[in-house]
Amino acid sequence: MIRNVVLGRVSDEVDLAALEAGLQALRELAVPGVEIELHAGVDLGLRAGNADFAVTVDLADEEAYRAYDENAEHRRIRLGLLGPLCSSIERVQFRLPTAGPASSGRTMGGPARTR
Amino acid sequence: MIRNVVLGRVSDEVDLAALEAGLQALRELAVPGVEIELHAGVDLGLRAGNADFAVTVDLADEEAYRAYDENAEHRRIRLGLLGPLCSSIERVQFRLPTAGPASSGRTMGGPARTR
Repeated sequence: MIRNVVLGRVSDEVDLAALEAGLQALRELAVPGVEIELHAGVDLGLRAGNADFAVTVDLADEEAYRAYDENAEHRRIRLGLLGPLCSSIERVQFRLPTAGPASSGRTMGGPARTR
Repeated sequence: MIRNVVLGRVSDEVDLAALEAGLQALRELAVPGVEIELHAGVDLGLRAGNADFAVTVDLADEEAYRAYDENAEHRRIRLGLLGPLCSSIERVQFRLPTAGPASSGRTMGGPARTR
């Protein structure tokens, strides 16, 4: 599995409703023959200096990523809806662990120590 | 649910083994009383201009995020292992959809059209 991650900053004068419309278009994106798990949202403001929005997309492999990346509707959303809003975009695609105990990535620390 | 997303670029002279050691320390991180689903990895080189690594962490809510963010071992890894390697870091925390049909974020387009 591959996780595609995008973080973006929008220009100051951008209307956040336009950003949300672009993210919603991504959420509704279907790529022929490719299963994608896409989550997108605006920053919650929990930390100073954060970027403005994030998109994460889980795909089966490199071939699925390429089909997603080159998909016409995806390009329309990226170049036509989101691109014009952005002052900067960072991307990474990285490998998610395949099945196995460590693959869940889940840890649960012991009970919280009382302070 | 909240997804915390971090994308980082490392300085040119950085030894990638040092980056991997920092990411592995994050993968092994357990925060007392908090369940986290953490995935971390280096960029696969599928696209020019990408950042160098990504970390995604799924947490129950804002309180869990704060406990994770302020955890001493997490701070040691962030400030002591990964921070010194980085030339830039971008972060966003965004809301994952709660349970419901749209919550999976999964779409599957119809069969791929033959070219």
